[in-house]
Amino acid sequence: MPSSIQLAASTEPDDLARPGIDDVVAAAARLQGVAHRTPVLTSRTADKKAGAQLFFKCENFQRGGAFKFRGAYNAIAALTDEQRRRGVVTYSSGNHAQAVAYAGKLLGTSTTIIMPKDAPALKIRATQEYGGQVQFYDRYTENREEIGRRLAQERGLTLIPPYDHPDVIAGQGTAMLELLDEAQHLDVLYVPLGGGGLLAGSAIAARAHLPNIRIIGVEPEAGNDGQQSLKAGKIIHIPAPKSIADGAVVTHVGHHNFPILQDLVDDIVTASDAELVATLRFFAERMKIVVEPTGCLGAAAAFASVNQHRGQQRVGIILSGGNVDLERYSKFLTESSHA
Amino acid sequence: MPSSIQLAASTEPDDLARPGIDDVVAAAARLQGVAHRTPVLTSRTADKKAGAQLFFKCENFQRGGAFKFRGAYNAIAALTDEQRRRGVVTYSSGNHAQAVAYAGKLLGTSTTIIMPKDAPALKIRATQEYGGQVQFYDRYTENREEIGRRLAQERGLTLIPPYDHPDVIAGQGTAMLELLDEAQHLDVLYVPLGGGGLLAGSAIAARAHLPNIRIIGVEPEAGNDGQQSLKAGKIIHIPAPKSIADGAVVTHVGHHNFPILQDLVDDIVTASDAELVATLRFFAERMKIVVEPTGCLGAAAAFASVNQHRGQQRVGIILSGGNVDLERYSKFLTESSHA
Repeated sequence: MPSSIQLAASTEPDDLARPGIDDVVAAAARLQGVAHRTPVLTSRTADKKAGAQLFFKCENFQRGGAFKFRGAYNAIAALTDEQRRRGVVTYSSGNHAQAVAYAGKLLGTSTTIIMPKDAPALKIRATQEYGGQVQFYDRYTENREEIGRRLAQERGLTLIPPYDHPDVIAGQGTAMLELLDEAQHLDVLYVPLGGGGLLAGSAIAARAHLPNIRIIGVEPEAGNDGQQSLKAGKIIHIPAPKSIADGAVVTHVGHHNFPILQDLVDDIVTASDAELVATLRFFAERMKIVVEPTGCLGAAAAFASVNQHRGQQRVGIILSGGNVDLERYSKFLTESSHA
Repeated sequence: MPSSIQLAASTEPDDLARPGIDDVVAAAARLQGVAHRTPVLTSRTADKKAGAQLFFKCENFQRGGAFKFRGAYNAIAALTDEQRRRGVVTYSSGNHAQAVAYAGKLLGTSTTIIMPKDAPALKIRATQEYGGQVQFYDRYTENREEIGRRLAQERGLTLIPPYDHPDVIAGQGTAMLELLDEAQHLDVLYVPLGGGGLLAGSAIAARAHLPNIRIIGVEPEAGNDGQQSLKAGKIIHIPAPKSIADGAVVTHVGHHNFPILQDLVDDIVTASDAELVATLRFFAERMKIVVEPTGCLGAAAAFASVNQHRGQQRVGIILSGGNVDLERYSKFLTESSHA
């Protein structure tokens, strides 16, 4: 089965382009006045729960409801005029689909989004409303990456994959720059980990400013391929995992992302679905914010690590998004669970 | 039936003490570093819905989950040392109960909270956790204001009623000062109206800075006593109204509050329960924030007034709180409704 290894190899030189702090700073300049500068919330109740001082960077308040807008916009804005004129293509059934459509609309670039034909009607509609041309595929018989590559070649489109791309990584790192600007010093940082766009970007930004910060990626327990990969020293592929953290159920981290995680991330830990539900409820009940399960990964790990924190430690947590269907959200709020 | 008219008359001179902008500014100084300076959120989707530029002051992120902390803290902080040593008493089954208990704890003042014995266990527990001494009464056979007055006399306590008090009004006005500081100019302001503490305080602050701002109070449709009172030129009492906006189901506005509303408020409008539910969902789905039904009053009215706004108008909206039981909240998010 073709994977994004082959895809990346077909579009990049063998030594993968690696973004650095200058690229994150350049991305921040592109996003200035376009992306929301999202608020950083604090909560004494959360501090008690974690035994530390917590700073929550609220990317659930970002345009499109998730951090994904940053990377998508940065990647399209970094294209040549000619590339932007021709248009871009991506594949995603999640937040990246809407982010690319939205960013394309703002930048006057046509966007083709490859989505499974059984994707939720709501997500298809939202992507179309932002002006994305949705191209359906059958996820049981067809391969979305192949379709993406073919469309890119046939139509002269530029492929903007969801995480395995230097400009996407650099864009995702800009949330961390803002968090640092507000919190100033941080001792520890928790970031959700799926394909590694947000974690790699955040790690570049955090490490450049705070050489001694402890950077922790957080995966769903059922999909700990990143944890396995860091241990093995190479990218480990796993079968499609099952978790309510639907933004982080990837089969492997990205090839641009992995070397950055190897160099800059201190540890990768996991959170169970039950912990995510308990955290999602905490956010609704005590902090009055809607956070999707994937967005709860960092906080769930911070709450579980209470014994490792020392009271005065300053801990940054990135809440990656808030896009969750209200029916599903209501079930999480009320179903009996003993996390 | 004794009402707070008699209560007020027994504790205040005939010409009721009326707070002004200096009192709101003094309250802001007392609350500095104690109350959260809550964020002001914006949303392009909300702007489209209302046909104007909206600025949402998020008091759902206030300590204790509602603006009530401001007034309660200010009123207790304004007491003499001797009064604070003796303690305070209040009656409330809602956000004011927790706010007084919390403020008392921070200021080292013992607090007695008169609550109906059938109040939700969660609210009783929260009040007790903040250190409030809960005194139960039977709301079918006893009068809470009489009990409050009796306890105040017997034990030398100072009564801090939920809204009918100059220092409570001045404290509630501080949220508006912060909103003005951030939004600078506003053309219109929507504020929830129950007893009139938040509306009176906000109106004092807004009118002092923007003489031409249009100030609109918003009541639940089923409990439009304020609207009736403004029309009649005197305080109208109504039977206890039924609405999901449980923070605004009062039988009459306060006696300190009414003259301020008469002088400074331009109009009072209403929102139906169906409109409140639709607005509550909008906040969860598009803005990712939890707002209680009462807190939705201002936004519901702004969305319903789309034809009266002109696109460039700047509209301030105070979201008064986010305290809603998760079971109940889930029902609002999912029950079929055609607002």
